[in-house]
Amino acid sequence: MRSVSIIGFGQTRFGELWEKGFREMIAEAGVKAVQSAGLDGKEIEAVFGGTMASGRFIGQEHIGALIADQLGLNPIPSTRSEAACASGSIALRNAFHAVASGDHDIVAVGGVEKMTEIDVGATSFALGGAGDQETELFHGATFPALYALMARRHMHDYGTTEQQMAAVAVKNHKNGMLNEHAQFHKEFTIEQVMNSGYVASPLKLLDCSPISDGAAALIVAETGKAKKLVEQPIEIIASSQSSDSLALASRKSLTELAGTKHAAKTAFERAGIKQKDVSVAEVHDCFTIAEILAIEDLGFFKKGEGGKATEQGRTALNGEIPVNPSGGLKACGHPVGATGVKQAGEIFLQLTGKAGKRQVKGAEIGLTHNVGGSGATVTVHLYRRA
Amino acid sequence: MRSVSIIGFGQTRFGELWEKGFREMIAEAGVKAVQSAGLDGKEIEAVFGGTMASGRFIGQEHIGALIADQLGLNPIPSTRSEAACASGSIALRNAFHAVASGDHDIVAVGGVEKMTEIDVGATSFALGGAGDQETELFHGATFPALYALMARRHMHDYGTTEQQMAAVAVKNHKNGMLNEHAQFHKEFTIEQVMNSGYVASPLKLLDCSPISDGAAALIVAETGKAKKLVEQPIEIIASSQSSDSLALASRKSLTELAGTKHAAKTAFERAGIKQKDVSVAEVHDCFTIAEILAIEDLGFFKKGEGGKATEQGRTALNGEIPVNPSGGLKACGHPVGATGVKQAGEIFLQLTGKAGKRQVKGAEIGLTHNVGGSGATVTVHLYRRA
Repeated sequence: MRSVSIIGFGQTRFGELWEKGFREMIAEAGVKAVQSAGLDGKEIEAVFGGTMASGRFIGQEHIGALIADQLGLNPIPSTRSEAACASGSIALRNAFHAVASGDHDIVAVGGVEKMTEIDVGATSFALGGAGDQETELFHGATFPALYALMARRHMHDYGTTEQQMAAVAVKNHKNGMLNEHAQFHKEFTIEQVMNSGYVASPLKLLDCSPISDGAAALIVAETGKAKKLVEQPIEIIASSQSSDSLALASRKSLTELAGTKHAAKTAFERAGIKQKDVSVAEVHDCFTIAEILAIEDLGFFKKGEGGKATEQGRTALNGEIPVNPSGGLKACGHPVGATGVKQAGEIFLQLTGKAGKRQVKGAEIGLTHNVGGSGATVTVHLYRRA
Repeated sequence: MRSVSIIGFGQTRFGELWEKGFREMIAEAGVKAVQSAGLDGKEIEAVFGGTMASGRFIGQEHIGALIADQLGLNPIPSTRSEAACASGSIALRNAFHAVASGDHDIVAVGGVEKMTEIDVGATSFALGGAGDQETELFHGATFPALYALMARRHMHDYGTTEQQMAAVAVKNHKNGMLNEHAQFHKEFTIEQVMNSGYVASPLKLLDCSPISDGAAALIVAETGKAKKLVEQPIEIIASSQSSDSLALASRKSLTELAGTKHAAKTAFERAGIKQKDVSVAEVHDCFTIAEILAIEDLGFFKKGEGGKATEQGRTALNGEIPVNPSGGLKACGHPVGATGVKQAGEIFLQLTGKAGKRQVKGAEIGLTHNVGGSGATVTVHLYRRA
């Protein structure tokens, strides 16, 4: 396989963007990414886009073609991928294959979601399509309910507390203060999180990531070519993806995501590195318990110790393994199709030393972890300076 | 790039399959494909699925994970791609890249759509999401209306007649009689097509492909490995994809698909062959006019001569270039996500000499042509015996 690197990144602000449509967001993120790579757009040979539920959110499918059209990139190939909340990283993975194969040298990766044009009930129902429609959604199990089951069992088995989950929210909101593209710029205390209303016990409002609009885009190139185009490409040293049952009830355990463990194992083996080598990670914190599961299942902490580690500040921006410097899904926002692309973009900024006030000092190797549904799809990517 | 070949194919019958759910169809097509390649399933390293609008049709997204789950293939990666009616061939193309890159040796490609669980109005609206929601669908332009505009202009510019379009339907229904998986087993005369009711003038009921349920699956492998597994792999000698504007009104011409012309040019150049070398083609006849556009834009006939060529029998099963031996979308049916996969499967059967009563004698090289929307995405693949 040819080596593949990221050479540019752009995104819209994430949030309730009443003033921006789906198409405007694509254009803004795409143009910013092209400019960030010092290109003018003509060099792009193909586009890989990630969107989850545009059919339900805005009545529009065929998003690949829309992206090419909107960015003036016809007639190059443009493809949409979907894996629920992991749609963005799946698009990155398809782009990775297209460049690694030699079919393309320079491609764009986009992620976009416009979630605020329909009412919240319809949004919840659309998002429920990420789980098992027949055995979960149809019976009323929306995503906070599914993750609440995982949280409750984790508390039962390992003594994880609601305060420890709150510590994830507090940390990520603190990081989000340093990210100009974050949906929320508001710090919270443990007490404030604890006093927010229950959505699905034990998960409270401030344990949940928000409904968001937003887009993010990357430019990806064969590493040899990348080195000629930009000063510091960031190489994708492993791209890994795993599947698990759609329905939570079919899993062996509620306290781990088997997909995360499998994808992480594969990725670390391929890259030939260990967890201790990772300087910075963006993980899928759709709910606070999800970040605790992630840092355990990725192998940064032992099973059952993720909550305590967070409470102790070990995942803070100045901790031993900074997790979610962007603010994560919790504070930066979670426009589902865009999230996986933004995660890779954040690592690109961190490893090129362009992360501004939230820069992790001396960041050498980065990791992204993106989850679809309650864990039926998981991707893990590893990155280092090329 | 490594060479990539098809080694197995399976499909459900296409039709109004009231007795089969989305999941049963995946299982049936997947198992048949695995068996056809003489495998037991454990050899599959990844899955690439194509589905257009499952969110609207059955309330379920995250189809990649569902496929892996349903086929017992966890934890291997499983990804859904979407490009409206070209979703199946886009999935094939992503699989092609994954194998060509060296990341995977043996993968499965699936296409599936369950379209008959919601009422026909809702189905039309979901399908409209393949076009431009803001400038077409919202204003009432469903797909028969869009293709009617193309047909009317083709008649105006080139003297194409409704009888010539009817000849496409007559031919494809004749071919469909020989395909046990076809939705319709019923022959029609030109008069019967001409006497069917107008859907969107000049297109009549029998000019339109149907609403269908169905699934199809392929097994794809690196060619060296493929040769060890099966007697006769079919090599994909070119995989090409193009984009055009989503909206018909933004195109320079109504009488050609620029995407088809561009994708065909690229594919023939890559394969180093000419149109005259092609023995058999499966093209995208969502409406009869679409097949006429296709055989012209692919370069089999001069612009404006596709209707006459069809009338003269030049695209019949025993003609100079047999088009749609499977019966095409018109008679075999058009479960949108499955169509592109079925097309490749038909060529696999033709080139391996397993197409039964509809076998094109001495078929050496095959072509598939799959269109998303009114032409905003077009794929062209070329195949020959490895």
